[in-house]
Amino acid sequence: MSNGPVVIEVTRGPVVESRHEGIAAVMKPDGTIVASWGDIDAAILPRSANKPIQAMAFVESGAIERFGLGNEHIALACASHNGEPRHVETVRAWLGKVGLREADLECGTHPPRLQSTIESLAREGTAPTPAFNNCSGKHSGFLSTAVTYGEPTRGYIKYDHPVQRRLRDVMTDLCGTDANDFAYGTDGCGIPTLATPLRRLARAMANMAEPSRLSNRRAEAAGRIRAAMNAEPFMMAGTGRFCTRINGTLAGVAQVKTGAEGVFCAMLPGLGLGIALKMWDGAGRAAELAMATLLGHLGILAADQMQELLHPPVRNVVGLLVGEMRPAKSWLG
Amino acid sequence: MSNGPVVIEVTRGPVVESRHEGIAAVMKPDGTIVASWGDIDAAILPRSANKPIQAMAFVESGAIERFGLGNEHIALACASHNGEPRHVETVRAWLGKVGLREADLECGTHPPRLQSTIESLAREGTAPTPAFNNCSGKHSGFLSTAVTYGEPTRGYIKYDHPVQRRLRDVMTDLCGTDANDFAYGTDGCGIPTLATPLRRLARAMANMAEPSRLSNRRAEAAGRIRAAMNAEPFMMAGTGRFCTRINGTLAGVAQVKTGAEGVFCAMLPGLGLGIALKMWDGAGRAAELAMATLLGHLGILAADQMQELLHPPVRNVVGLLVGEMRPAKSWLG
Repeated sequence: MSNGPVVIEVTRGPVVESRHEGIAAVMKPDGTIVASWGDIDAAILPRSANKPIQAMAFVESGAIERFGLGNEHIALACASHNGEPRHVETVRAWLGKVGLREADLECGTHPPRLQSTIESLAREGTAPTPAFNNCSGKHSGFLSTAVTYGEPTRGYIKYDHPVQRRLRDVMTDLCGTDANDFAYGTDGCGIPTLATPLRRLARAMANMAEPSRLSNRRAEAAGRIRAAMNAEPFMMAGTGRFCTRINGTLAGVAQVKTGAEGVFCAMLPGLGLGIALKMWDGAGRAAELAMATLLGHLGILAADQMQELLHPPVRNVVGLLVGEMRPAKSWLG
Repeated sequence: MSNGPVVIEVTRGPVVESRHEGIAAVMKPDGTIVASWGDIDAAILPRSANKPIQAMAFVESGAIERFGLGNEHIALACASHNGEPRHVETVRAWLGKVGLREADLECGTHPPRLQSTIESLAREGTAPTPAFNNCSGKHSGFLSTAVTYGEPTRGYIKYDHPVQRRLRDVMTDLCGTDANDFAYGTDGCGIPTLATPLRRLARAMANMAEPSRLSNRRAEAAGRIRAAMNAEPFMMAGTGRFCTRINGTLAGVAQVKTGAEGVFCAMLPGLGLGIALKMWDGAGRAAELAMATLLGHLGILAADQMQELLHPPVRNVVGLLVGEMRPAKSWLG
């Protein structure tokens, strides 16, 4: 396998109109490289692709049992959701169970992802609230954890709050190097996002997929998270979304999560592998196809399964097929 | 000046999170290179960035005088508009003057660009129509031209229709090589988009900017188009858009037009130059900053003018400044 970069092409008629370059690593839990493309020692910001890792401290805290939560809440803690009614209602009910309100969420408010939801709100004459934020489930998990440990909830997004410190402890354990040494930026939802060498992120995913090197409690949490991602795929994203389709179709076989700016991660428990990839230009369309292609390459996603994820068509306004997206020959030959 | 590629960086905290690469050319009307970055012989699809060129045949046809049209219609013919009420109403009235209806537009219907317009439609209980298509002005220009010449209007988007043939004739004249030899794909709105070497596209823009090499009639049309782009900047795009702000602020000095998949073009009549650029990954955010940066580099856009176009902030959901977009040192030093 070449060590050239991941390359995704976008064609229109006979022309390669655009192309995306990135890096990817397929790793074992001990850090052995199974396959890699490009400079996987480069530090990237995982953004929302490491929400499943961030959900670990929540599940380990015992908040699930304490507040009577279930798979839908664990999936929401791992999610970048569309802000569809079921997402929003579940988050609101969850906060109620914990004795908190939407105003305790520090993620801010942005418009829901789907035009249909925007139209519904307009017809009702209402505005989105913090529960509509794609990260509201993750933040509800943070709040639930803080309440469980008796910590102040205000400021839970700050680098030195115990909630964020625990995330770095988990990350340190999973990726095999001290995450407190990582530089960091501020994520869209206000929490620190740690500059993580791609190879370390892939290794963390491998340890989530095949957690025999972890403590019993942590291994159990990883298993619950993987199960919830597959059991509640709608909660992971929503209508029409890649994460919802893959986590639903490949239940028990793969758990995938997207992140902003072209990041994608996967856990492959059957193979005992983790995947992390980053498209350098931040293109989500390319990150999705790169992940689908790798799942196909590893024999997990069959060519006749979800054709349009493996071979995304490019259509014009009237629906005519005018091009395609494809992995470049220079990537996987 | 290096001949390395155009590089735009996106930072978050201390980290360069994403980066975009592209090509750019600054040309004189005779094809002399003033500056270039990357392989400018590469063929790109200009997409909507060559709408000002496509408007030439419309203006040359005499349709303006025949149907009592003005600058707002010429600007709309060059536009990728938001589908705001003034855009839609002007297109509808225009078609009425020509004796046609929205159903004659072959561009198809897509949702308007702004959330506020989507919300208005939802509250009114109405759906968008072809006039909301960002290309509806260009298509109204095509239809007006066909009617003026007594040609069938149906099928005006097809490669062999006289409307499209005239576009290739204009392109051949402006870029100095036979555009009938170019490969082509189908654009979002259904018309052919010609695979044009970037250096040829920049040369065409230079001949639009400084048309002394063109026939009198063609030179006059170029001048009318430049004037209309500056006189009606709202019609070029709409609320908050780069093309609207630049064409309004730099009236008489520059005329710019964006295209899908990371293309941007500019005419600089005072300098007698044309610019064309393409970001290889198709990123509009990078194409905008690359264009602003080149306008700054050429002394046309002052550092204190439109700071946020020259130094775009990256903000998170609550509005906190978390990063920036900037030209990489490897590009312009």
